[in-house]
Amino acid sequence: MLRLSRLLSKRWLSSSKPAGSTAAHYFPHEPKGPHLATDSIPGPKSQALNDELGQVFDNRATYFVSDYTNSVGNYISDADGNQLLDMYCQISSIPLGYSNPELLKAARSDEMANALINRPALACFPSTDYKQILQDGILAAAPPGHNKVWTALSGSDANETAFKAAFMYQAAIKRGSRDFSAEEMASAMENKAPGCSDGVILSFDKGFHGRLFGSLSTTRSKAIHKLDIPAFPWPKAPFPALKYPLSENVQANQAEEQRCLDAFESIIESYPPHTVAAIIVEPVQAEGGDNHASAAFFQGIRDITLKHKVLMIVDEVQTGVGASGKFWAHEHWNLTTPPDMVTFSKKFQAAGFYFHDKNLQPNQPYRQFNTWCGDPSKAIIAKTIYQEVVKHGLVEKTAATGAYLYPQLQAVLDKHPDKVLNLRGENFGTFIAWDFVDAGARNKLLAEMRARGVNVGGCGDVSARLRPTLVFENSHADVFLGALEDSLKAL
Amino acid sequence: MLRLSRLLSKRWLSSSKPAGSTAAHYFPHEPKGPHLATDSIPGPKSQALNDELGQVFDNRATYFVSDYTNSVGNYISDADGNQLLDMYCQISSIPLGYSNPELLKAARSDEMANALINRPALACFPSTDYKQILQDGILAAAPPGHNKVWTALSGSDANETAFKAAFMYQAAIKRGSRDFSAEEMASAMENKAPGCSDGVILSFDKGFHGRLFGSLSTTRSKAIHKLDIPAFPWPKAPFPALKYPLSENVQANQAEEQRCLDAFESIIESYPPHTVAAIIVEPVQAEGGDNHASAAFFQGIRDITLKHKVLMIVDEVQTGVGASGKFWAHEHWNLTTPPDMVTFSKKFQAAGFYFHDKNLQPNQPYRQFNTWCGDPSKAIIAKTIYQEVVKHGLVEKTAATGAYLYPQLQAVLDKHPDKVLNLRGENFGTFIAWDFVDAGARNKLLAEMRARGVNVGGCGDVSARLRPTLVFENSHADVFLGALEDSLKAL
Repeated sequence: MLRLSRLLSKRWLSSSKPAGSTAAHYFPHEPKGPHLATDSIPGPKSQALNDELGQVFDNRATYFVSDYTNSVGNYISDADGNQLLDMYCQISSIPLGYSNPELLKAARSDEMANALINRPALACFPSTDYKQILQDGILAAAPPGHNKVWTALSGSDANETAFKAAFMYQAAIKRGSRDFSAEEMASAMENKAPGCSDGVILSFDKGFHGRLFGSLSTTRSKAIHKLDIPAFPWPKAPFPALKYPLSENVQANQAEEQRCLDAFESIIESYPPHTVAAIIVEPVQAEGGDNHASAAFFQGIRDITLKHKVLMIVDEVQTGVGASGKFWAHEHWNLTTPPDMVTFSKKFQAAGFYFHDKNLQPNQPYRQFNTWCGDPSKAIIAKTIYQEVVKHGLVEKTAATGAYLYPQLQAVLDKHPDKVLNLRGENFGTFIAWDFVDAGARNKLLAEMRARGVNVGGCGDVSARLRPTLVFENSHADVFLGALEDSLKAL
Repeated sequence: MLRLSRLLSKRWLSSSKPAGSTAAHYFPHEPKGPHLATDSIPGPKSQALNDELGQVFDNRATYFVSDYTNSVGNYISDADGNQLLDMYCQISSIPLGYSNPELLKAARSDEMANALINRPALACFPSTDYKQILQDGILAAAPPGHNKVWTALSGSDANETAFKAAFMYQAAIKRGSRDFSAEEMASAMENKAPGCSDGVILSFDKGFHGRLFGSLSTTRSKAIHKLDIPAFPWPKAPFPALKYPLSENVQANQAEEQRCLDAFESIIESYPPHTVAAIIVEPVQAEGGDNHASAAFFQGIRDITLKHKVLMIVDEVQTGVGASGKFWAHEHWNLTTPPDMVTFSKKFQAAGFYFHDKNLQPNQPYRQFNTWCGDPSKAIIAKTIYQEVVKHGLVEKTAATGAYLYPQLQAVLDKHPDKVLNLRGENFGTFIAWDFVDAGARNKLLAEMRARGVNVGGCGDVSARLRPTLVFENSHADVFLGALEDSLKAL
């Protein structure tokens, strides 16, 4: 019955979708389904290679050793020749599929060779083409209302440079037109106020913003991320714990979001003005368990930040670049005022933060500064990704694929209410997740899926998350749904 | 007279040097000297391009806009067609010269294309070739006594991951065999002890270790690096302020180093055991003004860290990869026990830290972790750099070039004792610096040098630093010395 309804949906969509299969266009030889070469994954070659790797590198988180030269489109190959439908995609980081031919062209271009072998210190000796590379790529992709960017090297780095911009911005307001005082200059060298800010960044319970010392102080996902590492005494606000299905819990969820907004505002009010330099929030708390909140909640956050002159940083490191069915997930909110900064990395390879207020550039050079200030080779990759996304309408297609997948996934999960619950991500592209009754069931399901040739990642304590490419299409969704149905039965 | 002695030295060296010119081998068409196309630098095209760049990127630290496609060997070209002898090299980051043909081969290789377009989350889905790439490159270059590496994305990132390793290492000793306690798990989520460490990293006055929140807390170079940014209350120790020339100040310098060692030990003793998780020190404090200390001083540091069970991190981000006349500058010290961690970036493009104690891998996976955990494309570049350095004996050649340059530079500076002083870096390859009487004179000299087609960088408040490539040879030194002589006269 289900397979039939799936087939029908598929037929319906294939007649209504705006264009042909981009996956088939890019990858005429993409596998039609998983190929299993060994009895279990990781297979013997993968295990042997991983043992060797362990001699020189911390390899204890390895799922399997991958053969990227044999990975194509939505399929990742391992060292043993297994080919898995990849819906984890390097922790949400492969936008156009493996071995994408347009990315290959970019990788083989003179522009790329030049960027790789003559890597500049961008803020001192920028290249003649850097402005154009930014203009045609990272900046062309800027969220509504944003027109400047600061480039960085990772999501953590992007967030920390955004934090620094926020601290310098608030300090400049407090300082007014006067110059740095002698006391500020001297105390900064001692790691003390007033030269060093005693301000804070407010984040949300279960948020994840990276693992460097500043970003880790805003990360609140799991203890294992934070244990034994010093942290700044920065505050956290509660994040709504919504009940599902949403349609049956409207009032309870509204009350929950209001509770969180009230707590959020009261934390801000507990600090002197300009002390909460910024708040940082993910459109969906991905590492923390794919926790969603409504557009109204985020508008509430925005209103409170504007009221108290606190900057709002939206961390789109995992949600950005199309997977949500919008290029930036926060576009789902239709905010009345854009956020102050939006950070990105992962699917863009390039990292950094967007902004619009020129005062987020500090008053002097060399304050927001480091040797590289980004990487032209990654900016070229980001440019290619952006142009391909636009050319093939991949955001819209991902929205359509999500709309195809979601109700069928709901139907599959509905058959196992004793094992799975809380499906979320409706009308949110393929950025979909659900819960298991416990971590053991989740982990077993992910193993069952891998044994059937489908690679899915976990998040939070008991969730599975879908993070396929932007060329993940209905036919791939069918493969996934089939494997899931079988795996759930085997639980 | 000087020019003659220089010529003589040149002749002497050309008959005694171990092999032919690597620069000529790589770059048969390298310019013989600077080419000046505009009256001043930056020229009009460079300025126009920089103005455009400023619309989207913080461009206020720009020296000039560079045309890397026209940069070759030791010569950097700007947008106006000026070709400058580059002795700053992207803040000490170009090891083999611009547009190096072997790096170009690596950049155009299938291996590189694969690394760029299928960038892995290395700790979860490592590639089949990552171990070999590490083995043949980054690890083959490991300092004496080190056999493991953790890869990162920048010098700051390398230092912060090393700090995290140190904090987890010390916490594990204190915790012994017991598991994390419930109180630790809960308090970590609140950014509080005992779950979050109240330990510290000790650094040195005028040290520079990066600009992320943890690394910036150890950076003590300039207030402008630190103002308005929150910092951890971590301690700093004095770093010796040596007097030059060294041969005339032996006793005073010994006393100064002993004073600093005593202060260093007394700071460590002021904390409970295992609270100073690690100390971090540069072989030469580069950003802070190219401050050197003796091998005996660093051995003293090592002895004190061993005595108090504090880890020793040597930050070779700027000093590493050959410029000092050793591959790693700390090899000059002949330490009785290797440092616990050695960090690198810049000239290697790849970044990270070396270590030898397997307990610097935390007791569980996902503790030292992030999405990328390094970048295979940079590891391939590092491998190529290492292999070319070995193949052409570039470390030894750089030592010889430094030995050629240093006495002649001394002779040039000796003519202007009213303007310049404190030449340092003897027997330290081309990693050479000297002071000016004030910042104004330094800045004017650097401008005069650029106007003569030689790009030199400053450091500290009043110093100039030489950071040429490893294919900077006697003929390039001659060009530099000529321009310096003229520029000093023009001061």
